[in-house]
Amino acid sequence: MKATITDVAKQAGVSMKTVSRVLNNEPNVAKATRDRVMEVAASLQYRPNLAARGLASSKSYLIALLYDNASASYITNIQRGAIEACRRNGYHLLLEPMPYEQANSPEAEILLGRLGVDGVILTPPLSDSVVLRDILRRLDMRHVAVAPNKMDDVHAVRMDDAEAAFQMTTYLIEQGHRDIGFILGHPNHGATASRRLGFEKALNEAGIKLNEDWISAGDFSFRSGVQAAEHLLSNPDNRPTAIFASNDDMAAGVMSVAGRLGISVPEALSVCGFDDTPIAQIIWPQLTTVAQPIHKMGFKAASILISRDNPDDPKICTLDFELIIRESTLGGPLLK
Amino acid sequence: MKATITDVAKQAGVSMKTVSRVLNNEPNVAKATRDRVMEVAASLQYRPNLAARGLASSKSYLIALLYDNASASYITNIQRGAIEACRRNGYHLLLEPMPYEQANSPEAEILLGRLGVDGVILTPPLSDSVVLRDILRRLDMRHVAVAPNKMDDVHAVRMDDAEAAFQMTTYLIEQGHRDIGFILGHPNHGATASRRLGFEKALNEAGIKLNEDWISAGDFSFRSGVQAAEHLLSNPDNRPTAIFASNDDMAAGVMSVAGRLGISVPEALSVCGFDDTPIAQIIWPQLTTVAQPIHKMGFKAASILISRDNPDDPKICTLDFELIIRESTLGGPLLK
Repeated sequence: MKATITDVAKQAGVSMKTVSRVLNNEPNVAKATRDRVMEVAASLQYRPNLAARGLASSKSYLIALLYDNASASYITNIQRGAIEACRRNGYHLLLEPMPYEQANSPEAEILLGRLGVDGVILTPPLSDSVVLRDILRRLDMRHVAVAPNKMDDVHAVRMDDAEAAFQMTTYLIEQGHRDIGFILGHPNHGATASRRLGFEKALNEAGIKLNEDWISAGDFSFRSGVQAAEHLLSNPDNRPTAIFASNDDMAAGVMSVAGRLGISVPEALSVCGFDDTPIAQIIWPQLTTVAQPIHKMGFKAASILISRDNPDDPKICTLDFELIIRESTLGGPLLK
Repeated sequence: MKATITDVAKQAGVSMKTVSRVLNNEPNVAKATRDRVMEVAASLQYRPNLAARGLASSKSYLIALLYDNASASYITNIQRGAIEACRRNGYHLLLEPMPYEQANSPEAEILLGRLGVDGVILTPPLSDSVVLRDILRRLDMRHVAVAPNKMDDVHAVRMDDAEAAFQMTTYLIEQGHRDIGFILGHPNHGATASRRLGFEKALNEAGIKLNEDWISAGDFSFRSGVQAAEHLLSNPDNRPTAIFASNDDMAAGVMSVAGRLGISVPEALSVCGFDDTPIAQIIWPQLTTVAQPIHKMGFKAASILISRDNPDDPKICTLDFELIIRESTLGGPLLK
């Protein structure tokens, strides 16, 4: 029979809360009491668990990651960063998938109300769910939004998507491209509008007229990249010399269509993506893309929650990105 | 100030354990007591959390997933399955990455001892760590191993890797291939030996002599697939007409090398993988592979832990796999 916190408290002649305080190394416990509790715990081979630790401190030592995201590599990267911050502080990460539709339903309130974690990390597209943010405020649960679009009333960890898309488009223009296709991301994601903004601004500053036909819908999935590419590349006499997809999965879709149509990348078509997920180096030729600080965003989001900053003090933390130039754009528009 | 379980207990005139029992819907609480506790909890706007729920029942309602795996899609798939089982039973999933080296160190015991979860899911290569399994037994923590090699003394959820590799190799032989290269997985993973076994058995049964030069080392990473393919395809006059890689990432590496060397897949080289991860459909041509029941294994592992079967009763649960035939093997050895 495993010893419980009650057994330790009884035998040491103190309350369960005192045992919990000792286990958490909290101040305001007399040394004699602390020693007695530790001695009893050792003699009973008592192993404190999260529930026992959380009892007195009103901390759960848990952070929850809420997500609805098809990209496995994005989510595992956020996880890794968040876990790194958790480990350093004795916290643990709970995984809570939540479809975007559910986030806007009463179910979400029930689920979150029962959770009782010390903080919640919201990832796109949940980062921009007004309903979800309201629920979290009502429940008095601290939360940080990763890469939200609306940042006026929330702790946020982000990068400058518009600036990154601007720089990538400018790079393509410097390579000699003027006929550039663009594939949009999922309409629910804040980054989608920002990346489009940066793309259009770069064309505008270079004096290139925007061709609306060459802005194609997508939803961040590989399949939507295939469909967009089939549209953009349908006319052999009038097609872009470069395609900028709003993420790597869609860029991989473009390269798959190009392969099928016999259009060489990068000789006849430059392709670039966004995110620098592992797929960017797995496809051939390797993909030019934007390295998002995904791991760092996860780390920073968890760190903010653990440090328990004042929740009334909205705070935006903007992290750096990097353009990664690989083979998929080293062609130039020569064959056109 | 948020109401705590102590506030509810005090105002209802019961112990914290009784409050916890009521919150968990446990039997052996008088209806009058139950009603009073619920009334007080509502009036104080008390929101139970995991710590409060776990107090009386000695359950934590937490399952931990231990992993050290480079493949994001494998881990997210296991996660999804495990979370599905957790959700149905009011449990939550904790993520605990643990490098294989750490699993064999005293750190692992400290980390796991503090965790206090109701069960632990071990994923490859941790599934086969004897040290880790010993620690878990010493700590009296229930655990299930996903796809272990040594199954005599542990609850296990697995598929028949040897049989799957046997069937895939037999399929390649039926397509007319006799010169088949094989790329091994990571030596720490139990599946690596099983898949090799199935490959060799199929050659043997077809009366094809094994060419040791065409069994190439790998570690499940894309990069190791590239290196193995560079070796296997180095001699234009004597190279395999098919390559069977022990996972999809390495198969993608083979296709990348083939692309660079101008070897058409599948016309001049058939390629197949193992796992049916999303990459199998993202690369072009799409990859023939083995669909592992990864999601189901995660679901089943968590279900076993939640149901609290007798831990002294080792039990093996073998789930079905499926060969998925796609374009990457539809060539046959015609051009040789």
